Amino acid sequence: MPDMPTLCKPAVSVPEHVVTMEQTLEFAERIHAGKPQLSLALRLIRNTGVRKRHIVQPLEDTLRHPGFEERNRIYEVESKKRCPEVIEEALANADLRARDIDAIIYVSCTGFLMPSPTAYLINTMGFRYDTRQIPIAQLGCAAGGAAINRAHDFCLAHPGSNVLIVSCELCSLCYQPEDDGVGQLLSDGLFGDAVAATVVRGTGGTGIRLERNASYLIPDTEDWISYVVRATGFHFRLDRRVPGTMEPLAPVLRQLGEDHGWDIGDLGFYIIHAGGPRILDDLSKYLNVDPGVFHHSRNTLTEYGNIASAVVLEALRGLFDAGTADQGATGVIAGFGPGITAEMALGTWTAGAPDRERRIA
Amino acid sequence: MPDMPTLCKPAVSVPEHVVTMEQTLEFAERIHAGKPQLSLALRLIRNTGVRKRHIVQPLEDTLRHPGFEERNRIYEVESKKRCPEVIEEALANADLRARDIDAIIYVSCTGFLMPSPTAYLINTMGFRYDTRQIPIAQLGCAAGGAAINRAHDFCLAHPGSNVLIVSCELCSLCYQPEDDGVGQLLSDGLFGDAVAATVVRGTGGTGIRLERNASYLIPDTEDWISYVVRATGFHFRLDRRVPGTMEPLAPVLRQLGEDHGWDIGDLGFYIIHAGGPRILDDLSKYLNVDPGVFHHSRNTLTEYGNIASAVVLEALRGLFDAGTADQGATGVIAGFGPGITAEMALGTWTAGAPDRERRIA
Repeated sequence: MPDMPTLCKPAVSVPEHVVTMEQTLEFAERIHAGKPQLSLALRLIRNTGVRKRHIVQPLEDTLRHPGFEERNRIYEVESKKRCPEVIEEALANADLRARDIDAIIYVSCTGFLMPSPTAYLINTMGFRYDTRQIPIAQLGCAAGGAAINRAHDFCLAHPGSNVLIVSCELCSLCYQPEDDGVGQLLSDGLFGDAVAATVVRGTGGTGIRLERNASYLIPDTEDWISYVVRATGFHFRLDRRVPGTMEPLAPVLRQLGEDHGWDIGDLGFYIIHAGGPRILDDLSKYLNVDPGVFHHSRNTLTEYGNIASAVVLEALRGLFDAGTADQGATGVIAGFGPGITAEMALGTWTAGAPDRERRIA
Repeated sequence: MPDMPTLCKPAVSVPEHVVTMEQTLEFAERIHAGKPQLSLALRLIRNTGVRKRHIVQPLEDTLRHPGFEERNRIYEVESKKRCPEVIEEALANADLRARDIDAIIYVSCTGFLMPSPTAYLINTMGFRYDTRQIPIAQLGCAAGGAAINRAHDFCLAHPGSNVLIVSCELCSLCYQPEDDGVGQLLSDGLFGDAVAATVVRGTGGTGIRLERNASYLIPDTEDWISYVVRATGFHFRLDRRVPGTMEPLAPVLRQLGEDHGWDIGDLGFYIIHAGGPRILDDLSKYLNVDPGVFHHSRNTLTEYGNIASAVVLEALRGLFDAGTADQGATGVIAGFGPGITAEMALGTWTAGAPDRERRIA
């Protein structure tokens, strides 16, 4: 059997500025004071289940809009400042050095840079100049799953290669003070900032042996999650029907399992994009699994909020840290985002070959 | 030997509004009248070698800036209107139907939509809902080469699959009337609009059998080609050193050939991103090849201007139409863009298996 690509332990970093749910409720009370949407805003925030979030600027600065140009400039400064450390940790987790990496997949929907940040990383961190650059900006929260799947593909196409995934989501830089639609009210209490990175090793490594990946677009839901691009930047739009999307996606996940000979209701681990609180409850119902299987995803949401494409990587980090997966345990990873698109992967937990063998590989 | 992915004949469409070099010189005379940059602007425009360009709006409308939101709305409307026909033609060229496609790579640096336009195409053109979506916005002009290379990779990872590439570049929507730096002055006379599409077939097909791909970042040139993101949209910045980049890239192309056992100076066809007039002259010098080998690339530049990621696909269309490549002819495809990044592929012209065999495959 040829080597199968292995998803190694992610590294995750969250910024130093913390906003608790209580603070979120306070600022909502203040900015919506006397307006008809106040009670809705407070209810939405309370229902997120988000205990706290981490953001790159102090709350007062985050609530001001300095213009799209300045926002994007802050994105550039903060991403360049915060990514390298997380990447170094991800490389160490995979027992690799920068020059061992053959492709970098950089995903982010919260800042737009051209050249892609991959160029900066190659120039400053010792990656080879022939490293493939694969930046993806338009898959939103689904991009974490997509990055894992495209890394899997790359390793299949180029056996023995290694792919670095970087997710840098500074959602607080998309806060739009003028917006008070339901999507914005919810997102004001939901989204947080984080940087995550991981490596998919073509050979060797400890983690999840990737076996199959798939994508699915829910028909005719293009306008359910979207950006409106304006002079003030990206304006997030969220349809009220989005929280109900696990009903159509559960059969897709079930079929994916069947295609692989697995029962999706009986896997060893579940790493799911916890976009909001209802996602996990519904998935538990429709897949007929105990809500406890989503422990790591729920923990990501509670502790950091919806950190967009970084959610699945943060939840994965939790799985690795817990050390509870047994050799051979089967699992699923699924990211959901605009489209509405689901990016799904199936894999098996592997403790890797003994250390000596791994180093030779 | 396993099947090798084959790049089929591209389809290309350019918009109905035409701007000739004479018209470009006239509007430059008008908008820079009495300003110090006038003579530079006229010289830059004359030197482009661009005889005419095609744009999605009449020239008067193009020269007005209606705001970033409206510009991006026009991008959405025009891309949705213009892509399907080109895609249908590309599918027909590959002898495939929409449901035979396993992944869509959509590249564009001139409009930003989330969800990615891939969602719209899947919903409206009969693609399967499990089609992988790979949108790339941040590789600029190099994205045409990158799309071919990632399609190649996808077919290697998933044998027998087919990948649709769509490049929709509406460069005229990035015209910035307030900018008069040298990069903008040049781009005012250089860039044009086009939509191109092609298919990489995992098995069968007539065209270029893709054999090897590579990427290269020229060290420390991140700020040579870039976007400044502002309230008014994307502002193109071009350093004066960019036209000289074939000197460092020629040895990279030469090495790529050597790695494959080929002499880069003695191939059957050359499909090169003609970003500007000097690129091809310099490459001819540094690769020691006759300038005539770049006929198709030069023709794209002359007839349509720099159409960003669509250049390599348009030049490829010219190669297919000319019908001059012999069975087994070796060739190179290279796109250049921000980073500065080169995306390169080597392949062999194949007339395909006899029709009967192809249909069974």
